[in-house]
Amino acid sequence: MTSVSFLSVEELLEWLRTQDIQTLLVELTERIEADFLRWDSFDKTPRVANHSQFGVIELMPTQDEITYGFKYVNGHPINTKLGKQTVTAFGVLSDVESGYPRFLSEMTYLTALRTAATSAMVAKHLARKDSKHMAMIGAGAQAEFQALAFAAVVGIESFAVTDTDPAAVEKFILNMQPYGFEIVSCLDANSATAGADVITTCTADKRNAIVLEDADVAPGMHINAIGGDCPGKTELELDILNGATVFVEYEPQTRIEGEIQAVDDDFPVTEFHQVLKGQAPGRISDSQITLFDSVGFAIEDFSVLAFIEERVFDTQHVVGLDLVAEPAEAKDLFANIARKGNSNG
Amino acid sequence: MTSVSFLSVEELLEWLRTQDIQTLLVELTERIEADFLRWDSFDKTPRVANHSQFGVIELMPTQDEITYGFKYVNGHPINTKLGKQTVTAFGVLSDVESGYPRFLSEMTYLTALRTAATSAMVAKHLARKDSKHMAMIGAGAQAEFQALAFAAVVGIESFAVTDTDPAAVEKFILNMQPYGFEIVSCLDANSATAGADVITTCTADKRNAIVLEDADVAPGMHINAIGGDCPGKTELELDILNGATVFVEYEPQTRIEGEIQAVDDDFPVTEFHQVLKGQAPGRISDSQITLFDSVGFAIEDFSVLAFIEERVFDTQHVVGLDLVAEPAEAKDLFANIARKGNSNG
Repeated sequence: MTSVSFLSVEELLEWLRTQDIQTLLVELTERIEADFLRWDSFDKTPRVANHSQFGVIELMPTQDEITYGFKYVNGHPINTKLGKQTVTAFGVLSDVESGYPRFLSEMTYLTALRTAATSAMVAKHLARKDSKHMAMIGAGAQAEFQALAFAAVVGIESFAVTDTDPAAVEKFILNMQPYGFEIVSCLDANSATAGADVITTCTADKRNAIVLEDADVAPGMHINAIGGDCPGKTELELDILNGATVFVEYEPQTRIEGEIQAVDDDFPVTEFHQVLKGQAPGRISDSQITLFDSVGFAIEDFSVLAFIEERVFDTQHVVGLDLVAEPAEAKDLFANIARKGNSNG
Repeated sequence: MTSVSFLSVEELLEWLRTQDIQTLLVELTERIEADFLRWDSFDKTPRVANHSQFGVIELMPTQDEITYGFKYVNGHPINTKLGKQTVTAFGVLSDVESGYPRFLSEMTYLTALRTAATSAMVAKHLARKDSKHMAMIGAGAQAEFQALAFAAVVGIESFAVTDTDPAAVEKFILNMQPYGFEIVSCLDANSATAGADVITTCTADKRNAIVLEDADVAPGMHINAIGGDCPGKTELELDILNGATVFVEYEPQTRIEGEIQAVDDDFPVTEFHQVLKGQAPGRISDSQITLFDSVGFAIEDFSVLAFIEERVFDTQHVVGLDLVAEPAEAKDLFANIARKGNSNG
């Protein structure tokens, strides 16, 4: 029987609890970087989004020569008021040669991990090399993953955190306690960003908000803008874009979903893989403001799915799922229905 | 715990074996017709296809106000040579309000059922009312489902069948024996189509083939063309299109994938839901040739998934799948990883 390997939420968590999360984030960052370096070997398309008054559900496919992958992900900011996740996700890997799915995994946690790893990978190349202090606007579900990745990959040592929900900041501080970071709780973005080398904006409101003003941005900063990722959902004051050099994942998708939806279609941006490959400049001065207008791209999901598939392969964490029909004769799909005492028989 | 109801291949088969397949196909036809009648309540988009040298993998999403659905489906004609299915599929239904998935099902069998039901639904309205005899070009995995649906819904009593693989025709005849149809095995399309009221073309080659020539088509026939469903994959001689009135599911997708990819973009077609709703004419004379250029549309998959979900709801055929992360606190995704003896703790 062809069976699809299934990694459930609980089994992924069991596996994650055996890992050093920062080591894992470093390895995942390397994996995503390796995949970005072979950018041209992937099929790329903007994700397919179905919007409603409640939120959005998206499908994000990509493939290389060997493996196809897609992620299902929703974005429903109202969910947290109902005790549900804003973002949940699952994903599938398939063999390109047969088209058969082979791996199904939860991706709510994997999305948090790959988003943090991607942010850190980009900041490692774009932030000033002496960056030590990060401001965090938004202390929601993604915050700890971002902090751990930036500490492990970029060398960030201290965090200034603010959130409209004080309980979220308390949660962040509690969760980060074992790691020994210096963490300051701030009343607003203005106080959080004072003296920061890097600013991460990660809020969940599905609307055009301004969580970061141009006045809060100083020369030399790197801005990691990950919360504006949907049409009508942005986080930055427009002037920030005009004063910064803007880097994106996949331009056709970011034009629809990113902070740059607020500016003209000819607003200059650089796809980050070009920086990695030496085809475009990254940061060129210590006073330049670099901005990663991140929306999350299918290749990042592909990377983390393939990474996890390898890690849990042949362990007790995966079980076989009977998802692919395999009649004894390929052309005889019908026989399986009819030949066991069908009332017509 | 939020759990996703999972219907496996074997459990679907177990359930199908308890059903009268023709009754099921009639009910499914009614369900799809009801959904086509409320066409405007669905979000519609051409499916997202990733092509390779081996085949294609597609994602087909749609949603109404309450429910989101998508199907994953591959098309790999070379698979049958390796004992695998040309087409395998699975699908998911989700709540639009929360974005949470709620139902995961195999869809290889469900796709065969919904394709047959859709073909029969359209033919019921477009074929001559006195249609009794169907020619079938191609006797592959879909053939029995098509025959049963056309018998039950359209009133077809006899079939003339041809396939480049004689074993496929033998398989079809064997599988259909219990139903008492008159079935003739034919050497080629020309002999199979003689005297037919309806012609169904359903072959799997992924190329521009001609499995039906204009000379085989007579006035008054209805052509159910379901095998041409991919860029570069068509079945009909071009002249057939020019002599017929062409009906499609969703025009933007069929322009890319259907028989009409071979003609200009202004070639006139009618979306079939308009016929159902009385907004466009269907068949207007007994000598007219009607052609359903079918490629398979997301709403049909939505219909069959919702139909099956209702039928197996709360039965022993479905099991809960741990696919959606639910931390105790919605904003505290990280706690589940860290608070059970993480080595950093």
